[in-house]
Order: sequence, then C-alpha cells, then structure tokens
Amino acid sequence: MAKILIIYDSESDRKFTSTAVPYVKEGVESVSGMEIRVKHVDEAETEDVFWADGIAIGCPTHLGGVSWKMKKWWDDRTPDIWFKTDGKFAVPFTSAGSLGGGGELACMAMSVMMMNMGYFVFGITDYVAKKESLHYGAVVAGEPRAEHAKEACRRAGRRLAEWVGYYMEGRKDLHPLEAKYTRFWELAD
Amino acid sequence: MAKILIIYDSESDRKFTSTAVPYVKEGVESVSGMEIRVKHVDEAETEDVFWADGIAIGCPTHLGGVSWKMKKWWDDRTPDIWFKTDGKFAVPFTSAGSLGGGGELACMAMSVMMMNMGYFVFGITDYVAKKESLHYGAVVAGEPRAEHAKEACRRAGRRLAEWVGYYMEGRKDLHPLEAKYTRFWELAD
Amino acid sequence: MAKILIIYDSESDRKFTSTAVPYVKEGVESVSGMEIRVKHVDEAETEDVFWADGIAIGCPTHLGGVSWKMKKWWDDRTPDIWFKTDGKFAVPFTSAGSLGGGGELACMAMSVMMMNMGYFVFGITDYVAKKESLHYGAVVAGEPRAEHAKEACRRAGRRLAEWVGYYMEGRKDLHPLEAKYTRFWELAD
Amino acid sequence: MAKILIIYDSESDRKFTSTAVPYVKEGVESVSGMEIRVKHVDEAETEDVFWADGIAIGCPTHLGGVSWKMKKWWDDRTPDIWFKTDGKFAVPFTSAGSLGGGGELACMAMSVMMMNMGYFVFGITDYVAKKESLHYGAVVAGEPRAEHAKEACRRAGRRLAEWVGYYMEGRKDLHPLEAKYTRFWELAD
Repeated sequence: MAKILIIYDSESDRKFTSTAVPYVKEGVESVSGMEIRVKHVDEAETEDVFWADGIAIGCPTHLGGVSWKMKKWWDDRTPDIWFKTDGKFAVPFTSAGSLGGGGELACMAMSVMMMNMGYFVFGITDYVAKKESLHYGAVVAGEPRAEHAKEACRRAGRRLAEWVGYYMEGRKDLHPLEAKYTRFWELAD
Repeated sequence: MAKILIIYDSESDRKFTSTAVPYVKEGVESVSGMEIRVKHVDEAETEDVFWADGIAIGCPTHLGGVSWKMKKWWDDRTPDIWFKTDGKFAVPFTSAGSLGGGGELACMAMSVMMMNMGYFVFGITDYVAKKESLHYGAVVAGEPRAEHAKEACRRAGRRLAEWVGYYMEGRKDLHPLEAKYTRFWELAD
Repeated sequence: MAKILIIYDSESDRKFTSTAVPYVKEGVESVSGMEIRVKHVDEAETEDVFWADGIAIGCPTHLGGVSWKMKKWWDDRTPDIWFKTDGKFAVPFTSAGSLGGGGELACMAMSVMMMNMGYFVFGITDYVAKKESLHYGAVVAGEPRAEHAKEACRRAGRRLAEWVGYYMEGRKDLHPLEAKYTRFWELAD
Repeated sequence: MAKILIIYDSESDRKFTSTAVPYVKEGVESVSGMEIRVKHVDEAETEDVFWADGIAIGCPTHLGGVSWKMKKWWDDRTPDIWFKTDGKFAVPFTSAGSLGGGGELACMAMSVMMMNMGYFVFGITDYVAKKESLHYGAVVAGEPRAEHAKEACRRAGRRLAEWVGYYMEGRKDLHPLEAKYTRFWELAD
C-alpha cells in the first residue's frame, strides 16, 4: 500500500480550506491501494511525514503565502525532518478569499517549502473544466462549491496518488497520460 | 500631465491579451490629466519607457511566465534602460488560458522584471466583485467578458494612474483610500 | 520627519538576522531627517505600522519563505491593517543559512506579503561590490561579516529612506539616481 | 540507459552560462549508465525533449527570469510538447551577474515553466560548501570559478541523474540519502 498524508491548516472561523479536504481525499481514494491519513496541522506529528510517501498540503491563502500555523509546523520540525524526506512527492491546495488574490502564489510558496525539504513538486497539466485548471496546485475561492472547484481538489489528490503509485510502487498503469478520465485537453482551447 | 504607457504582447492568433487593453486604458482615463500611449511590444520603443512615469505591462500567460516576446523586448534593452528608470511605477495584467493556470505567477514574473529595472510594483488591495480581486495585477482567463474581469483590468489601469498622479504630481486627492468608488471591501467576506 | 520602522524576526539561537539590523539602521540614518523605530516582532505593535511611512522588514530564511513568527504577526493583524497602509513603502532583508539557499525567495515572499497589504515594493538596481547586489532585497548568509554583506544591508535601509523622503516628503535631492555614492555600475560587468 | 538532456542558453558575448555546462555534465557522468545530450537552445529540437528522461535546463539570469531565447524555445513548442512530458524530471541552473541579483528567482522561473509542462522539479537539500547550497538549482555569479560554484553545477547534474536512475530505472542504490559523497550537512551549521 502506498501512503498518502493530507495535512492541512484551515481558517479558524469559516474553515474554508477544511471543506476542500474531502475532495482531495476523494481524489486519492479514486486510485486503488492508497492508505490515507488526514491530519489538521494541530494534530499532525513528525512521524506522519516519515510515514507518508506523498503529501497533499493545504492551507488558506494568507497574504499570498503559507498560513503561519502551517509554516510553524515545518519551521519547528526542520532539524528533525531535513535530509530525511528527499525524493518524496508533494502537491499543494489552497482556499483563497478571491480569485486573483494570491492562491497560485500560496500554492507555489508551499511547493517552495516542500522543495526545501527535498520533495518533488509537480505541475498538473490537466484542465478540470473550460478555463479552469490547477497547473500549480488546486486553488479555490472560499468553499469549493462549483463542480470545477471540487474537481480541482479531487484531481490534485488523484494526481498525487497516481505519481506515488507509479514511481514508488511501480504501477505502470497509473501514468496520468494513460488515464481514461477526461483531462479536458479539448477545453484548453 | 502624467504619462502612462500601456505596453503589451498578445497571442498571435486569438489575441486575448489585446482585448484586455481597452479596459486597462479606460481605467487610466478615469483619472483626469493622464497622457496615454498604447503600444504593442512590436512597435514600442525604448524612448516610450523613458517618456512614461508609469507602465501598465501586459502579456499572455505562457508557461506561468512572461511571453518570450515581452521578455525579449526588455532583455534586449537592458543595457540602455537599466539605471535610468528607478522609482517609476508599474502594474501587470495578463490573459491566461485558465484560472489556476499561472496568471498570478505571470503577473509576479512581470513585476520581478520591472523590479529589476528599478520600478515600484504594488499590490492592489481592492476587490472588484465578490471573490474576485487583483491583488498582484489583473488576471483574466481568455477575453475579459465577465464584468468583474473587465473591472479588474480597469482597476489596474486606474490604480496605476492614481499612484502616478499622487506621488509624481502631488495630487493628494488621488489616494485610493480616499476613492469614492466601491472597493468591495464588504465583499471580501 | 519621515518615519521608518525596522521590524524583524531572528533565529531563536544564533540570531543572525538581528546582526543585520544595525547595518540596515545605519543605512536609514545615512539619510537626514529620518525618525526610526527598531522592533523585534515580539514587541512590535500594530500602531508601529500605522506610524511608519516605510518599513524595512527582515526575517531569517526558513524553507525559502517568511519565518512563521513574522508571518503570524501579519496574518493575525490583517483585519486591522488591511486597507489602511496602501501606498506605503517596504523593503525586505534576510539572513539565510547559505547562498543559493532561498534568501532571494524569502525576500520575494516578504515582498508578496507587503504587496498584499498595499505596499510598494521595489528593486534596488545597485551593486554593492563586484558580483554582489541586492536587486530584490538584502540577502546575507549567516551574519553580515564581509563588507559587501554589510553594505547590502545598509543600502537596503538607505534606499528605503531615500524613496520615502523623495516621494512622501518631496525631497527631490534624494533620488537615488542623483546619489553621489558609488553604485558600482562599473562593477556590474 | 537513462537519458539526460542538458539544454542551455548563454549570454551572446561572455557566455558565462555555457561555462557552467561542463560541470553539470560532469555531475551527470558521475552516475554510471547515463546517456547525455548537450544542446544549445539554438540547436535543440523538440525530439530531444521527448528523448530525454530528465532535463538540466540552464540560462543566464536576465531580469530575474528566464532568458527570452530559452522562453521562446518552450513557448513556441508548447502545442507539440504539452501533455507529452508529464512525470519527467527537470533541474535548473543559471549564471547571474551577481549574487542577490535574481539567480534563485531565475531558477524558480525555469522550474515553474517545467512544472507547466508536467515535469517534476525538486529541491536539492545538499550543501556544497559552508554557506553554499543549491536548494532550488545551481546559481553561480559569472563563470563558476570557485570550487563550490563548480560543485553546485556538478551536484545539480548528479542529483538529476540520481533521481532519473532511481525512479525511472529502479536503481535503488542511487537514492541520494544513501550517497557516500559528503553532503556537507555538518557545514549547514
């Protein structure tokens, strides 16, 4: 079994990012043979990171970057984790207050953080609807209500599971370019 | 008269970015006393940059960055322009193929380029509709068809004109926090 | 008098970033007529931000981004500060564990944060020695021991003071392109 | 045999980036069983990208981003390459005019470009000397003359080869955390 950790921080009040988590999880579960842990950053432990082959990391977009609580989690554990997680896989997701409001930047800030820890980060070439994609991680505004927003979260989780299965377990059938689901390439136009 | 240059590159076929230009220009024109030049990157000259107090710079989002033609324009002119434009103002706008597809990153890539040239870049705190903002520059997907997309382009142009008027011409009434138009702060929630 | 706030976070143990602060402060002081507050993030208050015309913001480079404590400071105060600081000026500085280790990215992450708050951020075209510059803010590795590292910190502070004086107080003599100090343009080669 | 492409652009005059290429190549060659192509962007063909399992991509740091010629290469080929290279591996290297002058940002801009093409990008946790690392790709100022600068280039090439060998050819002995060479973790302090 491949092991996937979904670690997330969420707004203290409206908890928008937490509403994206079930869709990310659905995406992971759409690939067979995935063992999943879902942890709010308040309860996640260093061991969860060592356990996981791949991590979906999510936080609210705060000031175009990583929420402080998620940043603290990794900053505090750097001496313990660094040089131990090289070559694992990570994908970000975020809930921003608005489109154009920093969601892509927050995703990239999470990817930068994970790169510093030695992780692989990756682009997701898929479209999930006409004019809707998640090339640098799943970005939703507020809760994921529109179908394309839910699908972006699912796709992020699924892609992570596909790559972990493909590269870490040698399941060649999981290569996303072989996937039967529509990637909406036709909608890219 | 303050001087504003709108310099843009556009897709060779569908020209989506060029469809954003009229709205950016409208935004600049909504502030009195602005002299405006609009130049496609193929016809812009180094002198246009020296002439302008502020620049609205737009390009299609290509691979999460600046389109090569816009990049070439500035790369080629670096020896002539560098150390001559410090302290001027710039704001980016872009047309991406999709939301979540790199538009914010392309805006930031343009801002990085302008910072290297000594320009001031700035965040736009405004919302232009519920869950729609342009904190790092105006991002539209394809053509700006929705009213909020048009307004994002207008607001980018307007904010540039406001700051240039405020700081370079001492027109204290132009401070955006004094603006009468709605900034949709109430919609930020 | 123009008002400059130096707000910084520092490593809890070796405090490298704090050793950069005196040089940033020296740089601000090299411009006459600047009132200065220096505050560790643990003691800074929201009012300091309202008081200041310009901010030099510094933190250790942690995982290629803003240290969690500095992020928390701004995240927590967002509802109070947002829409009140538009058009002020900010410049970042950082101490990284190594060159090539994320210092530029941490500076840009701070700039992104400040842009979200409506601040102007700016590039510093200067070289401070042959092959040493601070185009996106001052980056030092560990303590600023080499003269060019000290000078990068000074230059960041000085440039901030120059722009604040120039734009907010109308002191036209402060334009950096008129500065008598060497900008090492000749060393750019 | 795993296949590695080194694709690079270089300054038209001093060609600093091209002087980094031999060290990147040395790094790739330090792993057995690697087939290598080295192509200047003027002579590289789309087929080279399809051929390669992993790409070391290098360009001069121009205005904190990708040099226009490298950008043009990928922009022009996007319709042919997109959705065909998902899951391959890429690592950036750059020659900047100065430290603090945008080299990290240029590396990240290349990584963003490759992510958009579906590539994996990765952080390199290693130090190559005290206070010298390449966490986001190899950054050198001018030519790589200092030993640590040469070693940064070598390490980037080597890491790419290690990961390609490890993940694409199942050579479990190539995991970098098992490497016998010093990673200078002790120098991180």
